[in-house]
Amino acid sequence: MLKAIQILGSSSFGFVSLPCRFKRKPQANCDLYFLSRKPIKASNLSSLRSKASSFAFRIRSHIHSDSNPYGASSSSSTSTPVQSTGIRKINFCQSCGGRTKHEIPDGEEKMRAICTSCGKIIYENPKMVVGCLIEHENKILLCKRKIHPSFGLWTLPAGYMEIGESAAEGAIRETWEEANAEVEVLSPFAHLDIPLIGQTYIIFLAKLKRPHFSPGPESSDCQLFALNDIPFDSLAFSSMLVTLQLYIEDTKVGRPMFHYGIINKRPGTSPSEIHAYTLDHHLKS
Amino acid sequence: MLKAIQILGSSSFGFVSLPCRFKRKPQANCDLYFLSRKPIKASNLSSLRSKASSFAFRIRSHIHSDSNPYGASSSSSTSTPVQSTGIRKINFCQSCGGRTKHEIPDGEEKMRAICTSCGKIIYENPKMVVGCLIEHENKILLCKRKIHPSFGLWTLPAGYMEIGESAAEGAIRETWEEANAEVEVLSPFAHLDIPLIGQTYIIFLAKLKRPHFSPGPESSDCQLFALNDIPFDSLAFSSMLVTLQLYIEDTKVGRPMFHYGIINKRPGTSPSEIHAYTLDHHLKS
Repeated sequence: MLKAIQILGSSSFGFVSLPCRFKRKPQANCDLYFLSRKPIKASNLSSLRSKASSFAFRIRSHIHSDSNPYGASSSSSTSTPVQSTGIRKINFCQSCGGRTKHEIPDGEEKMRAICTSCGKIIYENPKMVVGCLIEHENKILLCKRKIHPSFGLWTLPAGYMEIGESAAEGAIRETWEEANAEVEVLSPFAHLDIPLIGQTYIIFLAKLKRPHFSPGPESSDCQLFALNDIPFDSLAFSSMLVTLQLYIEDTKVGRPMFHYGIINKRPGTSPSEIHAYTLDHHLKS
Repeated sequence: MLKAIQILGSSSFGFVSLPCRFKRKPQANCDLYFLSRKPIKASNLSSLRSKASSFAFRIRSHIHSDSNPYGASSSSSTSTPVQSTGIRKINFCQSCGGRTKHEIPDGEEKMRAICTSCGKIIYENPKMVVGCLIEHENKILLCKRKIHPSFGLWTLPAGYMEIGESAAEGAIRETWEEANAEVEVLSPFAHLDIPLIGQTYIIFLAKLKRPHFSPGPESSDCQLFALNDIPFDSLAFSSMLVTLQLYIEDTKVGRPMFHYGIINKRPGTSPSEIHAYTLDHHLKS
């Protein structure tokens, strides 16, 4: 099994507790919450343009001053995604080894790491996490995590997308690694941004090519769950909670859609409170 | 205007010329080519698992030995995407400044840069390019590039997604920067992976909030084009060609869908031959 992806440390930004808590059988008010549509409106473009900058600065400052509550070191690797930030402290230039300074380059508006030796500006970009939502005989395949963070909690098979592969290929690969399951991707299902931690989740609907699966090295268990039995109180990540909830909503109306949304988490609560978020700018196709 | 995004140098992998060349009015055989559906099938998972590794290795070797045909230095920055690779030569650790070695870490299957000082494994991930397809009075807004690469060619407003923003926010920001246009995102339209260069294009349908636009600092012109007048022979990137073609196809059947696809480019031709690709694993929602 590949251990191909970094854990860069989960932050302790935490999330805000919301009144709607998912039980095994989601309630109607929760459904409304998930399916609100708020199209993006750039009513204040100046604010929008500076938002990424201030977010990145806040995240960077926070990460550098915080210990990692999950204990994952920066050199750890796993193919299982964590809802952590991809933002690292950049002290040196990867090309020439020169020391970096952190300032706003000429002609830009955002703080960047700049090499004091070769002048290179070092940019950082969000990371994509790719995974599969597999329905088999009206049940969904979930994996129980055997690694930190979220040890012992359930997730869809997913992991960081690698250079050289497509999102669909990455989702198939991760499913093989985490659940020893060979799948065929059927359609794109969800694109969920989590700006605060610099991650984008890309989830595909998929089907088992053979009805065989078993825990991979990072899973202690793999099980098929009926929609009414999904362990919403024991899921590993907000992104998986949102994905499963959207899927359940779609089954009620007859067919899966494609969903775009932004998962906004807020400071003040523990990262383990995966229900503490808002799903904003939810759009469907 | 922000100049927020890196050009890491366009490679000269080149692409294979295909018999289907787009003219101003796409031909029927081109349409068929674009709309073929090939669901992902992992008939050989072993091959799939090693694909990303071999691709990354091939790209890395190539990039390091090639000059940049567009002349963009590694320290250049622009908010306009280029179809270049995000894969860089990693000689030093960004955290401690130690020299790196390149080998397959224990428990992994892929070549990685590993710090010889602190032991950190340095991972690289694909980058997201986000942009808007804006229809206004049955015409599409395009920007003429005033910068290299693809100087003088037309593109949808788009650029690299930044840490701290969502894909939709990034697409709105880039449209403001490149076309001085305030837009509202309406729906997700396309997710196009280009594995060979480590990029994923995320394109939204959007509308002008006001009928005002003008060239930003990186554009020499902005124009609305009727669908029959889109300059298919003067587009900047394959991703934009595919996006516009899919949109035209959708208008023929009445409504826009959400499209997933993989743009596979092949060695042997010039990067300027944007028609030289295949669109594989095209899925719709």
